[in-house]
Amino acid sequence: VLWRRLGERVAYERFRRVVNRTFELPGGQETDFEVLDGPDTVAVLALTEDDRVVLVREFRPGPEDLILELPGGLVEQGQTPREAARRELLEETGYDGAPVEVGTVLHDAYSTWVKHAFVAKSCRKVAEPAEGELTEPVLLSVPEFREHLRSGRLTDADVGYRALDHLNLL
Amino acid sequence: VLWRRLGERVAYERFRRVVNRTFELPGGQETDFEVLDGPDTVAVLALTEDDRVVLVREFRPGPEDLILELPGGLVEQGQTPREAARRELLEETGYDGAPVEVGTVLHDAYSTWVKHAFVAKSCRKVAEPAEGELTEPVLLSVPEFREHLRSGRLTDADVGYRALDHLNLL
Repeated sequence: VLWRRLGERVAYERFRRVVNRTFELPGGQETDFEVLDGPDTVAVLALTEDDRVVLVREFRPGPEDLILELPGGLVEQGQTPREAARRELLEETGYDGAPVEVGTVLHDAYSTWVKHAFVAKSCRKVAEPAEGELTEPVLLSVPEFREHLRSGRLTDADVGYRALDHLNLL
Repeated sequence: VLWRRLGERVAYERFRRVVNRTFELPGGQETDFEVLDGPDTVAVLALTEDDRVVLVREFRPGPEDLILELPGGLVEQGQTPREAARRELLEETGYDGAPVEVGTVLHDAYSTWVKHAFVAKSCRKVAEPAEGELTEPVLLSVPEFREHLRSGRLTDADVGYRALDHLNLL
């Protein structure tokens, strides 16, 4: 049964935004939840012409460690997810390609955040990572990337698996 | 290169907790990030004796829709992830089993949150979902569940894929 939203107010807002939503439950009871209200994000499984996966090693403030991630980030105002995917790939790794969206993934039960999953084939290195990105491109073979997914040491494992699924590489 | 944490202060705290962490970047510049500080969670791929996947249909306050989810939730104080997985499975679906942890997944680059991925084989229905849970158990075949993972309409797709990977069912 769907719940009816009775109201919403901003509880916290800076870079992160938390809203407090009140719902009427099916039994009539009122209850409220804190929901993280975020812009959508993108992540890209980018493959080179010889089918290596282009990843990016970068420091992540949550896990406080250097993490080997799929290129990706926020969809900025006025940008399509596809434009954001291409921009992030280029800025973070220096590789360029033509990302194609293969699906979306819900990020969190208590967030409005949706992740757009992209695949980009035959990517080529056209530049160094953008100045200030503090990122290092790393190439893995598909089996190595699969092993990395199993390790869980990346924050877009859902997109990684989804993209390999799309490519029939699972 | 690892960044050095200079400080941390609480920016918001109620059910959700947001902390502000200041880091010294490799070039000496100081920058701060808002990090969602959350307890760990668990999610379980539970299989019945005839290899159907036990899911739970429930309203989710972020997407504001009825979502077909893996059973799971917070690891509560004093509980092991394994105990939390068994409790959530039982409370949300009425099925009981012996969850085994098969890995962990980082949830978010800007969160300390870690998801524990569990598999529970040969689960049996021993009760109705706990009163007040407002959840409905739903059984899917493994191919149907794989199709559901592809749809992205669940918040633990990473754990779902990881668990199928562990079981050699991808």
